[in-house]
Amino acid sequence: MTAHPHPSPSPTGSAAPRWQLIADELGADISAGRLAPGQRLPNEAQLAERFGVNRHTLRQALQALARQGFVQARQGSGTYVRELVLDYALQRRTRLTQSLAAAGEQAKRELLASRIEPAGAWAAELGLARSDSIELLITRSSVRGRPVGVSTAAYPLPRLAGMAEAFARLGSITAALQSLGVADYTRQRSVVSARLPEAHEADALARAPTQPLLEVVYLNVDAQGRPVEAGRTVFAADAVQLSVNAADWGQP
Amino acid sequence: MTAHPHPSPSPTGSAAPRWQLIADELGADISAGRLAPGQRLPNEAQLAERFGVNRHTLRQALQALARQGFVQARQGSGTYVRELVLDYALQRRTRLTQSLAAAGEQAKRELLASRIEPAGAWAAELGLARSDSIELLITRSSVRGRPVGVSTAAYPLPRLAGMAEAFARLGSITAALQSLGVADYTRQRSVVSARLPEAHEADALARAPTQPLLEVVYLNVDAQGRPVEAGRTVFAADAVQLSVNAADWGQP
Repeated sequence: MTAHPHPSPSPTGSAAPRWQLIADELGADISAGRLAPGQRLPNEAQLAERFGVNRHTLRQALQALARQGFVQARQGSGTYVRELVLDYALQRRTRLTQSLAAAGEQAKRELLASRIEPAGAWAAELGLARSDSIELLITRSSVRGRPVGVSTAAYPLPRLAGMAEAFARLGSITAALQSLGVADYTRQRSVVSARLPEAHEADALARAPTQPLLEVVYLNVDAQGRPVEAGRTVFAADAVQLSVNAADWGQP
Repeated sequence: MTAHPHPSPSPTGSAAPRWQLIADELGADISAGRLAPGQRLPNEAQLAERFGVNRHTLRQALQALARQGFVQARQGSGTYVRELVLDYALQRRTRLTQSLAAAGEQAKRELLASRIEPAGAWAAELGLARSDSIELLITRSSVRGRPVGVSTAAYPLPRLAGMAEAFARLGSITAALQSLGVADYTRQRSVVSARLPEAHEADALARAPTQPLLEVVYLNVDAQGRPVEAGRTVFAADAVQLSVNAADWGQP
């Protein structure tokens, strides 16, 4: 069920090199869940023996799997099935709930906290005065019971009063915005960076403080170009990749 | 000269809260280079004394600076001027050399290595047979003498024979492709992830192995949609952010 970036090619004919066949077989094991995310592969000597090849050939297979996003080598520790579970497309209509839905039934987004406060540092993004009010929602996204992202998003008041209640009822930011009269919204800007987590972020994501985050700072606007949501999401980088596809943005 | 994501707002009137004025002043010091990238700020007690405010107010100012991308708190170690030097726009015409040029005179891209080899794992991306040949270029981008990214890119042969020589002569991938008959190319897909570096990557970027990377795996195609470049770039995450702007992709 894992959404890997480059699905394993269908088994190739006997013309394919030996390492490619091994990579295909291991990739199929991962796609089918016979090798689970986070699991360590047997060591190179064991795998080489299992497939009846030398270490060099085996290493070529593991390198191909790593390039395809199936596994990740950790220095001095071995090769692990990558914990990638979510492909989050940055596109004109970027929708986290839809990306989660694509990850399967066990994906969900929950409200951790909400509060009403002065716009402060969010004011400029949202076209408000600093003393205007916003509603702040903190939500957590999980796949198969494992947290993958925590979002902090600000909504302008009084226009969007009731977002927390609407989200709690409808389970989706898009549905909540629609219920408050925002028929459509698009992503105006995303800024992506990577860093190590703060302690509270590592806690919320159930990750070690040594595991990097992907951070997306974003602004969504309605059909008239008015800001409706400014926010930032931190994703556990072992579980999420971001994709930007020309086709998703329409041709020029 | 640092390309920060959210430039400091112009000094506000006396109606602005005290913490905002302090954030503006420190932000101006950073923009002007009076506080250098990587430098640690004086501790909170010293700063509070300098500005004649209590710790709470000072902390609000530092939080605003962090949100604006000027500084970064490191747990148990203090607050540092962020080493962000490069904003790399993922857009229809994504051009690393242009992003570097925007970072100023001291930015450059150099050829670390090149070789000709079977297409292998690059074949599918480039629409080649695995036994076809590619030219592989490994380049390093630096700003103000500090490495910010290392790119590994594959070009299909025989069509683009001579890329390494052309790049060495012209100093830009875009110019090298043009000299080989590719008048224009566009970004078809970028996949962004974050992870800790391998030892050789940390070496090439002159970073500690505990400092995260931003990795971009990409495909560029010519005006006819034929792949001309498949590659991956690892960026030092303390020095680079990626941006995706709707305006760069044209309206639908």
